[in-house]
Amino acid sequence: MSKQERMLVELADQVECCSPLVREPLAPGQAVELARVFKALGDPVRLRLASLIASHDGGEACVCDLTDAFELSGPTISHHLRVLREAGLITGERRGTWVYYRIQPDALRRLSAVLVLDDTAAVTA
Amino acid sequence: MSKQERMLVELADQVECCSPLVREPLAPGQAVELARVFKALGDPVRLRLASLIASHDGGEACVCDLTDAFELSGPTISHHLRVLREAGLITGERRGTWVYYRIQPDALRRLSAVLVLDDTAAVTA
Repeated sequence: MSKQERMLVELADQVECCSPLVREPLAPGQAVELARVFKALGDPVRLRLASLIASHDGGEACVCDLTDAFELSGPTISHHLRVLREAGLITGERRGTWVYYRIQPDALRRLSAVLVLDDTAAVTA
Repeated sequence: MSKQERMLVELADQVECCSPLVREPLAPGQAVELARVFKALGDPVRLRLASLIASHDGGEACVCDLTDAFELSGPTISHHLRVLREAGLITGERRGTWVYYRIQPDALRRLSAVLVLDDTAAVTA
């Protein structure tokens, strides 16, 4: 797929999925889907985990890169990573001993598109 | 304040408050503050209320404009409006019989700025 095609697909997806909430009332079904993703970010530990993963060298991080930032047990970190994953905000891939996590850019784009204040910004965000 | 000054203040606020989470790890304090706002949007009814208010004629809506969209009691709607208000996403002003609600554009801008994927988008969103 060319860069242009990819941009068109992304744009169509944004329009279909989530036009800005200031433009027209969100449909109930859209609201359920989006609320799930916002809720996943509605926790300080999960927000920091998402940010640590997204800003890590190479755009991916393993649990071994994440645990030192928190005074939390491994299972608690794993729980929060699972919530982020189930909301479609990150993906995980096992390679050897560790699972490596990456942010899902499309998920961030979609949320950002919902929050922008005018149509121009929705397309460029 | 001139338009340019206002843009500079907004930009400074964005940089100070919430640089994109893909750029650098969120500080714990920022994460607590932002998570509260994301959590407020992490409910389908509240998302729809925010969208109904933001997209309403004139950019404001009273409870009388909102209740018909939901099969929920008045107190339940009021509870959700209070959560949005306490998170800084809407303001309410009593005029006569009704409280009129408006979206807080700065709050949406701030969240959107956190979610964008590159620095250019953060400034234009």
